[in-house]
Parts: sequence; C-alpha cells; structure tokens
Amino acid sequence: MSNFAIGVDLGGTNLRIAAVDEQGQLVEKVTLETKVALGRDHVISDMCGAIQRLAEKYKNSAELLGIGVGVPGIVDLHTGYLHDSPNLPGPDYPVRAEIERHLKTTVVLENDANAAALGEQWLGAARNFPDMAMITLGTGVGGALVLGGKIWHGMLGMAGEFGHTTIEPEGNPCGCGNRGCLEQYASATAVVRMAKEAMASGGAPALARAIQSDAEFDAESVYNLALQGDEDARRVFRRVGRALGIALATLVNSLNLPMHVIGGGVSYAWDAFAPAIFEELGRRSMVYAATAPTDPMAAGQGASTRKTIITRALLGSDAGLYGAARLPMMAAVTRR
Amino acid sequence: MSNFAIGVDLGGTNLRIAAVDEQGQLVEKVTLETKVALGRDHVISDMCGAIQRLAEKYKNSAELLGIGVGVPGIVDLHTGYLHDSPNLPGPDYPVRAEIERHLKTTVVLENDANAAALGEQWLGAARNFPDMAMITLGTGVGGALVLGGKIWHGMLGMAGEFGHTTIEPEGNPCGCGNRGCLEQYASATAVVRMAKEAMASGGAPALARAIQSDAEFDAESVYNLALQGDEDARRVFRRVGRALGIALATLVNSLNLPMHVIGGGVSYAWDAFAPAIFEELGRRSMVYAATAPTDPMAAGQGASTRKTIITRALLGSDAGLYGAARLPMMAAVTRR
Repeated sequence: MSNFAIGVDLGGTNLRIAAVDEQGQLVEKVTLETKVALGRDHVISDMCGAIQRLAEKYKNSAELLGIGVGVPGIVDLHTGYLHDSPNLPGPDYPVRAEIERHLKTTVVLENDANAAALGEQWLGAARNFPDMAMITLGTGVGGALVLGGKIWHGMLGMAGEFGHTTIEPEGNPCGCGNRGCLEQYASATAVVRMAKEAMASGGAPALARAIQSDAEFDAESVYNLALQGDEDARRVFRRVGRALGIALATLVNSLNLPMHVIGGGVSYAWDAFAPAIFEELGRRSMVYAATAPTDPMAAGQGASTRKTIITRALLGSDAGLYGAARLPMMAAVTRR
Repeated sequence: MSNFAIGVDLGGTNLRIAAVDEQGQLVEKVTLETKVALGRDHVISDMCGAIQRLAEKYKNSAELLGIGVGVPGIVDLHTGYLHDSPNLPGPDYPVRAEIERHLKTTVVLENDANAAALGEQWLGAARNFPDMAMITLGTGVGGALVLGGKIWHGMLGMAGEFGHTTIEPEGNPCGCGNRGCLEQYASATAVVRMAKEAMASGGAPALARAIQSDAEFDAESVYNLALQGDEDARRVFRRVGRALGIALATLVNSLNLPMHVIGGGVSYAWDAFAPAIFEELGRRSMVYAATAPTDPMAAGQGASTRKTIITRALLGSDAGLYGAARLPMMAAVTRR
C-alpha cells in the first residue's frame, strides 16, 4: 500500500468516508447515515469518529497524507465557513474549524461539485485532461472547472456555477434570482416539472398515468417511460439536451476546453438527452463545429485528439469521494 | 531607455507599429495605411519595412526583446496560419512564416482581441488584475481571457469568444451559425440594425430622420441622439446593456473573476449602456449579487477589494498595440 489520504463526501442521506491511496486505489470505504435531524455537531462528530478509526487502522501500513472533505453549499475557502448548505442547515458554520478541533489536524475543505470534478479528472472520464469542466445534474445543476489539473476557484471559490447559465432570458424563475437558468431545464427537479407541464397540457397520457399512480414518481420514472418509447417522455429529455447544448455552446466558445463531463444522478439518462446536446452544439458553437469528433457519442477518445469532447461521467457517486481524497494530495494548490 | 519590444496592430484601415519599453512607455509609434487592395504580400512587406526601421533606430540604445503582431481573425498558434481574416482576405495564410521570412527573426502572433486584453491587463483598466476578461465591442464582438497574467488560449487558441454567448436562443441569426449571439445585440452593426428596426416600427422619429438624412449614419449617430435625450436611441443602448448583462452574468457565475473590461469602438457609449448591465447582472448572477461594489459605475476600484468589477477600457485603440509589444516580453508563455 502506498501513501494514502482520507476523503469524505458529506451527502444529505449518506456520509461516506474512504481511505484512498496515491494510485487512486480504494483501500476502504465506510458509509454512515447522515443524521441531519440530530444537528450539525452530531454529524461532524460521527464523521470525525469514522475518520479517526480509518486513520488509526492504516497508520502503521502507510503515511496519511491528509484529509479532504467535500460539502454541498458555498464554501468560503479563506475562512472555512460554510454558507447555505442543505445537508448541514443553519446559520453560517465554521465547518473547517469544527472538524479540525475534533481531529486535532488540518483538513482541506471543498465544495462537493468541485470534489466530484477533481475525482473524474484524476481517475474518471477526464483522466489525462488537465483542463476540463464538469456539469453535475442532480436535484439542482452544479458545475466545476479544472484548469491545469487544479480546481479553478475564481476570486472567492464561487466559480463553476454552470447550472446558472442563462438559457431563456425570460424563462422559468430560478432560486438564484435569475430566470431561465440551465438548472430550470436540466435538473431532476426540472425533469419532473417538465413532465407535469406536459401532463397539464393534456397531451401526455403515459406521463399522466405515471404521475397519478406512482407516489414516488421522479426523473427516473420519466426516463423509464422514455426508454419504453413514450414520445412525451422523450421530448422532456430532448429539452434537457437542448438546454445543456446551449450552455455548453457558450462554455466551449468561452474556454475552448478539450473535455466536458456530464455527471450527477440524471446522467443515467445520457442516451436520452445527449443527441440533442450535439445537435445544438453543432449549430450554436463555431468552436465546437471546428473541433467536433467524428462520432461525438463514442466514448473513450484520447487526450491528444484535439477534439472537443462531451462525455458522461464514469465514477458515479464515488467521484466526490475520490476527489475529496485527492485534495490533501495537492493541498498546496487548493489552499492557495 | 530600458529594453524594448515592437508591437504591431494590423487593423483594416491602419497598420500601426510601436516600440514600447519594458516599463510600458511608448518609445515611438508609426501609423501606415493598410493597403489591403494591393494584396497580403504588400501589407506584410510594408509592415516588415516599418518594423525594421524601428528596430534599426533603437538597437544601439537598448536590447530588442522581440516582435509581437496582433491580427484579426483566427490564429492557429501551432502552425502560425491565419484563418478568416477580414483585413488579410484570401485562403488560409502562413502569416507567421511570411513575416519571419521578411524579418529573418521569430515573431509572436496573436489574435487582436487577445492582444488588446493583454494591453489593458498590463497598463490599462485591469492593471494589477492577473485574472480578467475583456469584451470588445466593434463591428463584431470579440473577447479574451487572461488567467494568471497569461492569455488563456484553450485547446487551439479559440477561447474568449464571448461575442458568441447565446442571449436569445431563437434570436437574430448570427454569422457564426448560432442565433441570438451577444454580437447580434452589442456590436456597432447591431446598434445600427436595432435603430433601423425602431424606425421600421414607425415610432422613432428622430432616428428615422437621422437614418434618412445622414449617409454616414452609424452607431455613433445613435449615441449622439441618445446623448441629446432621444428615448428611442436610449432604448437601443439599453438593449446593448441588457445583452451584455446576460452574457456577463453567465461569465461571472462560471469564472468568478474580479475584473471585466468593456472595450472597442462602441465603448464610448458606456454611460448609455452600463446602467442596464448592472441592473441585469444584479438579478441574474448570484455570484455578482454577493460581490457587487457599492457603486458599480465608479471607476478606479483597487485589486484587493474582493468585488466583481465591470469597467470600461482605458487604452482605447492603443490597447492592442501595447498588448502586441507585451507578447514577446512573455513569449515563453504565449508560445506554449
């Protein structure tokens, strides 16, 4: 076993802690329930307990390089405070200081979308691509940018909010204050809303039946109908793809990156939305048109093709865990 | 006199060549007519003659660090070929090799919008901001990105095309193939088109009079009417500002940069369009809302305020000339 780090993915349902070695091999993964109802201090205490047990277990086999924690919400990298976190609700919280007080050592804190991008860049779809962007389709739409192998934080760590790219200037109101954000057309929430809009218009019988009969109706239900060939469900995912295509056209024209990874829960529906992405991109981005691969849906393009690649994520929900473990390995960079 | 470099701005009307020292002092500037009608070889020959005279004149006073040339059009940084240049029309052209053949020395080639951004970053509005973006409002809308003090080229030198950010997905067709690009609402061409649209709608008497009586009616004519208080002309510039605000909201959310410079010919109308920029940005970008200066129209904010600044360019048409001279001073970077 080579030197290792401990990565944490603090999700709303599960708290996941892993020891990962420098080669990206998973040494051990622990999954706990995130007991948000018991309060933030309880969650932090559970997390630190698991970290300590893992650190203790492997400390005689290899050197512990550090601890990285991916948290949802806006992380102020200078103060270590967490703002507006759905999984650790409450007023602004000195999360880094709290963890460090428990563990009596420093930790590297990162936004969870950034950690996931770093994971995909290190070991997943963007391996060998030091410059890449990731768009994460979940309850909302997150994003992250890696430039020169490092997370691009921008001035205050707020960069990478591709979910709030304006798609329709007078479109659906978004929680961020804008209208018509990508998040309003490409998140799991948006998929369900668009399915309900289709039902309300009266012309989507299969969607209507599913919505009315299934108490757990969600974005995956829409995808299942699309797989079965239901045209209304397929249209919902074409809207997802169109919105992603418009956002990606602007991103490709702005940064001319070689690699763009689409991850998050909704990315299981890749086959249903990806064709619309490439259709939009081809006509909306001259940079893409000049650099498009012959078969954009084909996976596994190399890093030296000088083509603009849009592809799905490979690490699933582990991306954030690997990325979090990667953080202390490159801590000098992320703590700049 | 400290060491110096020679910068060239190859514009459609004027060919401008300057010797600039390492402190950014202009040593001498030469302006020639760009005789495009006589062919590309003639233009290159005129340009190289002027470069040689300047180099000869100062070679005994200080060391010549190199020669940088800003050209409009898409420059392939690897091959030194120029594609689609309005000022050097014709098939793809090995412009770097041609210049080097004349001068018998290497030159650094750069897209003109990138050179202008580097000029503003070195000596203008973005001085002391190693991370900045520039949007250039001219006949079209160009753009450039400087990260860590270096031009961000992306994979093939095509980054920074902010003029082709989608503003209205089903808006005006753009020459790039997309619809509703920023360029369709914020270029000098767009200002004239929007003025004519206002005239066609029948409700813009002052614009109609100016369009019909002035053979040289252009974007500046619209601005003059706006200055005189004509509401229809003012509305045209509010549309410019709205489009810029939408594009900047996406840019600020994506990169969280501290500094954004608006330059190019149309930037004289800053007072007429800037208020609409800030109005749109405030409601469309949560990152901007969290980091907006108290008075966004006030110039001269410092580099350490941790605010998101949008401001007008300071070097006017000299930005590209200074930026071109800067190129060989940092050649190791731009030739990567």
